[in-house]
Amino acid sequence: MPRYRITLEYDGTPFVGWQIQINGPSVAGTIADALGRLTGRETSVYGAGRTDAGVHAMGQVAHFDLDRSWDPLKLREGLNACLRPAPVSVLQASEAGDDFHARYSAARRHYLYRILNRRAPPALEVNRVWHVNQPLDESAMHRAAQCLVGSHDFTTFRSAECQAASPVKTLDRLTVIRRGDIIEIAAAARSFLHNQVRSMVGSLKLVGGGKWSPRDLDSALHAKDRTACGPVAPPHGLYLVAVDYE
Amino acid sequence: MPRYRITLEYDGTPFVGWQIQINGPSVAGTIADALGRLTGRETSVYGAGRTDAGVHAMGQVAHFDLDRSWDPLKLREGLNACLRPAPVSVLQASEAGDDFHARYSAARRHYLYRILNRRAPPALEVNRVWHVNQPLDESAMHRAAQCLVGSHDFTTFRSAECQAASPVKTLDRLTVIRRGDIIEIAAAARSFLHNQVRSMVGSLKLVGGGKWSPRDLDSALHAKDRTACGPVAPPHGLYLVAVDYE
Repeated sequence: MPRYRITLEYDGTPFVGWQIQINGPSVAGTIADALGRLTGRETSVYGAGRTDAGVHAMGQVAHFDLDRSWDPLKLREGLNACLRPAPVSVLQASEAGDDFHARYSAARRHYLYRILNRRAPPALEVNRVWHVNQPLDESAMHRAAQCLVGSHDFTTFRSAECQAASPVKTLDRLTVIRRGDIIEIAAAARSFLHNQVRSMVGSLKLVGGGKWSPRDLDSALHAKDRTACGPVAPPHGLYLVAVDYE
Repeated sequence: MPRYRITLEYDGTPFVGWQIQINGPSVAGTIADALGRLTGRETSVYGAGRTDAGVHAMGQVAHFDLDRSWDPLKLREGLNACLRPAPVSVLQASEAGDDFHARYSAARRHYLYRILNRRAPPALEVNRVWHVNQPLDESAMHRAAQCLVGSHDFTTFRSAECQAASPVKTLDRLTVIRRGDIIEIAAAARSFLHNQVRSMVGSLKLVGGGKWSPRDLDSALHAKDRTACGPVAPPHGLYLVAVDYE
């Protein structure tokens, strides 16, 4: 059974999330259905990141096994044709080794969180940004964010439903920059806890608005207590940008 | 009657265009309705650019007269509240002189056309870009575009429905650059003929794909004949970015 790896862009708005669930259409289920129409066989699809409902991807990676060999270019074109009109697009497809696993082989995941920071609500980027209408100090957010970089017990920034065995993760990078009205928060790590990026962003927003000092963020981290976290940022500002493999 | 000037962002997808028409919701009509709910009076709204159905704006400018004085900040916030859930957002509002006219006082209009140039269809930017899946040479497009800059008879690049008195316009700037998979075509002029930007982009795409040489574009311009134009680019890649006033 040859294995294939695909890179995906999707709009998370109409989906219940990456994972197949009974309560609505999922990204993985939509891709599995398209593969079924293309190949005539039921196929399981495994993703690098289990994005939540409303979360987008510019570079999700997934893999699946097919019962015969496919030209990767034809596989991409065929899948894209079968995916229409769902807002899921296969950017790349390639053959992968038997030992490749989109989730377990991943060495680093890159997320981006976008805040539209202006008074007026979004018209062109509805469901693509978190609209925060009070002025945010992105420099203060960036400086404060550096206390989260490194290996820490991220219990404070972890959803109650998180299934990870340990709350200790190593955050490689967390940067905050402004481009006009958009504040971009970029995070990179081998893996993240459930809701970790949105939890960190929600607390950083309190720093940006002056409600928390950088010291408050540090205290929240060291509290190792979910109730010490700021309100979690909404899903529609979050993007899975890329996944690195060794 | 105090006059007010507003700067607007909108998603052109659900509208029949800027101008009020009987066959569906227009941007101007949506704003006039919101003003009616806010002020209790019927108000006419005048825009700088009469964008077509599907065309977006990041910085359209409009004006209207109210029967009493309004604090511009409260006017903006009130209008934005009354505009929900339409994808139209007031970015700025200010009082304007009696002699200010959004359309007739405009000294320069800036448009942007966005092409997504990759094999895979858009998932995140559906209705925000023109998807062209054959490789385009943006350098060739930029070089060829320069023959259109300056004062010319733009009959070739003018819609049959254009109501302008003269086909002669002065194009101040036409640049083509690539940012990753996106090709951005920026055009600036005091005013444009109907469909001029989309007509120029449609012909530049033929140059980028190698079907036309730069000389073919120059010949099309000098033909002063609508049938010499390449297929007109679709509306959903076009944005009215800004309007300058003296």
